Amino acid sequence: MPNIGSHVNGDRLWKRLMQLAQFGATEKGGVCRLALSNEEHQARRQLVDWAKDLGLQAETDDAANLFLKLEGTDKRLPPLLIGSHIDSQPTGGKFDGAYGVIAALEAVEAITLSGKRPRRSVEVVAWMNEEGSRFAPGMMGSAVFSGQRSIGEIQAVTDAQGVSVEDALAQTLSDLPELPRRSLGFKAAGFIEAHIEQGVTLERIGVPIGIVTGIQGKRTFRVDIEGEESHAGTTARADRKDALVSAVAIIDALQKAMWDEADSVRFTIGRLVVTPNAPSVVPGRAVFSIDLRHNDAETVQSMGDRIAEICHQHRGACRVSVQPLLYDEPIDFPDDVLDVIRDASDRLQIPHQNLPSPAGHDARYLHYVCPTGMIFIPCKGGISHNEAESIEKNDAEAGAKVLAETAYHLAS
Amino acid sequence: MPNIGSHVNGDRLWKRLMQLAQFGATEKGGVCRLALSNEEHQARRQLVDWAKDLGLQAETDDAANLFLKLEGTDKRLPPLLIGSHIDSQPTGGKFDGAYGVIAALEAVEAITLSGKRPRRSVEVVAWMNEEGSRFAPGMMGSAVFSGQRSIGEIQAVTDAQGVSVEDALAQTLSDLPELPRRSLGFKAAGFIEAHIEQGVTLERIGVPIGIVTGIQGKRTFRVDIEGEESHAGTTARADRKDALVSAVAIIDALQKAMWDEADSVRFTIGRLVVTPNAPSVVPGRAVFSIDLRHNDAETVQSMGDRIAEICHQHRGACRVSVQPLLYDEPIDFPDDVLDVIRDASDRLQIPHQNLPSPAGHDARYLHYVCPTGMIFIPCKGGISHNEAESIEKNDAEAGAKVLAETAYHLAS
Repeated sequence: MPNIGSHVNGDRLWKRLMQLAQFGATEKGGVCRLALSNEEHQARRQLVDWAKDLGLQAETDDAANLFLKLEGTDKRLPPLLIGSHIDSQPTGGKFDGAYGVIAALEAVEAITLSGKRPRRSVEVVAWMNEEGSRFAPGMMGSAVFSGQRSIGEIQAVTDAQGVSVEDALAQTLSDLPELPRRSLGFKAAGFIEAHIEQGVTLERIGVPIGIVTGIQGKRTFRVDIEGEESHAGTTARADRKDALVSAVAIIDALQKAMWDEADSVRFTIGRLVVTPNAPSVVPGRAVFSIDLRHNDAETVQSMGDRIAEICHQHRGACRVSVQPLLYDEPIDFPDDVLDVIRDASDRLQIPHQNLPSPAGHDARYLHYVCPTGMIFIPCKGGISHNEAESIEKNDAEAGAKVLAETAYHLAS
Repeated sequence: MPNIGSHVNGDRLWKRLMQLAQFGATEKGGVCRLALSNEEHQARRQLVDWAKDLGLQAETDDAANLFLKLEGTDKRLPPLLIGSHIDSQPTGGKFDGAYGVIAALEAVEAITLSGKRPRRSVEVVAWMNEEGSRFAPGMMGSAVFSGQRSIGEIQAVTDAQGVSVEDALAQTLSDLPELPRRSLGFKAAGFIEAHIEQGVTLERIGVPIGIVTGIQGKRTFRVDIEGEESHAGTTARADRKDALVSAVAIIDALQKAMWDEADSVRFTIGRLVVTPNAPSVVPGRAVFSIDLRHNDAETVQSMGDRIAEICHQHRGACRVSVQPLLYDEPIDFPDDVLDVIRDASDRLQIPHQNLPSPAGHDARYLHYVCPTGMIFIPCKGGISHNEAESIEKNDAEAGAKVLAETAYHLAS
């Protein structure tokens, strides 16, 4: 059995991670590299440059997913995909997504350096817009690739400045005009995504590799409250239609309804926009997001089903509309993929632990179209979606080794 | 007794109002003419052009207050000021502020057309930044003119884009370089401000003129809640420091504490900004404004004094800081000014009603340095700080007549 993992180089991996983190670097040591932004364009070009150096073929598709192909000995076979995403939250860290792409690049380099050639092509992939903070909801590239959403549907989405995904995609694709354009959603032999855990399990037990058993379910909503703007100094309370007053009452009621003793429900209102948002004007409108997650399909379904009614019950003097945006059921990755990852870790004598993923990932959508698995590495304090995101170089290397072994095995 | 009011022309007044409303006009028929913005620069130039046509001398000061002088027969006497402001809320109407300035221009034109010449100069004034929505708090021009705030203090204020009042003032002043610059806070003989009521009293009783007895007290605060950004899918409720969760708890508690049976307290949270404001990130920061008003000095004082403690009690896992921004005690305008306005209305046979002003106005600050009064006219449904703001031309004319009579009397 060839030990591909021994060709993984932690310093090289770390250097590339730090180089990529310069695109959209923030003062506080994090990254702001929104999907399809100029900062992301620069990061893409860097990936394509690295691919050239490694003799990989860079290609893209209509959703601006980026593929860097190491050709296998049998071109007729569907390729194995390994990777993640390079877009970040507005105040994101250096590793969420980026680690999975750079680890995949390192895995491909390790395979090359081993002198072995897999039967299937192995392709490093960077999926478009995983985070969904500029264009919501996220995981657009993998959703379209896997046929879960249509290209027309995502093209129509706009950001806060009114820019459409359609226009942003056109700009991104024209930025690298030399890349061959593949058809959307070609057949893949499998997908393996390495990622930081974004939780504290691995750090607490001191184990570098998490073998991900599945992804928790998620429902998202947009709540739009319409009141009436009026003067803060003159309008009596009884005459007001204060959208923020209604929003506060609704959010308070939702928090109480979604509270669970076991603390297993993840309920978040991350975005709230008040209009006109002026100190002496009674707010005429308030719009907020709801992000609800749970490991159990029935729980996430039934809790989500209560949201619209609670919003209407507590709307006060305002009108409210509740728009369900996304429902991702909980999924379990196939046992045979888990087995391959576990065997790879064992061969490399790297400790591992099975665990579920509380966060959504592109692997969710790939799961519907090909055998899919994920490899987690620890991140400090479980802190993620935060400029303070931090990982250890040793863990990063361990994850890339397991990914390289796993990829070579699956492609051979 | 000369009837100056008979020279007031409602059509001319209305035409100017509609012309001014074109600067910053919104699609919904309102106005977005933020203080010191390009739209406001255009409106200033229009005022200066009208002043030239009427033979008035246009001047300004370091706070970009604009004065249009009709010279009196005795130049040594302090002038009488009449006017209001031309800046608006982001989704404001055509009349809040603008009416008082255009009515003052009409009053001066009426005096000119009467062939009479007052002893004192009469100056139309447009105070800088009354609304305070771009640069908070508002009434900056009148506060500095009256010595209630220093020019240095207001220069340091920045807008949401980080532009300082100092830079915005420099730009505004350089836009009309030909205007002579007067010293800040010269002695004035009095100030009369005409304004829309922004309440429903006059409309309900069907009376066109409100003689304003005083202005209710106002306190404003800025509440800053600091939590910790984290991942919405992975962070357990117990581990979160969710700034929006704390904000909702605090706002809910404040609303309960500020509730009064009589509905005489005006308590408003008009502005709330969440950071990073992304659907799948637990909010790390929330900042909101508090606007508290009441006619009774002791009530507004004691209610305001409770705010910091309530914020701290309900801060949850986050840190909170409460910054008092402004305290304007309730004021009463002097009886002899009220008498002059009432006598003018009686001479013109226009019905009038005494009433307090629930909203703050530049007249508040002028009250501290010279005899000051206000004239209200009805506005439809009491709706203000809203693009739907609406008044009747007949009421606008009645207000300008009373203002013209009052001004001529006070200046003679």
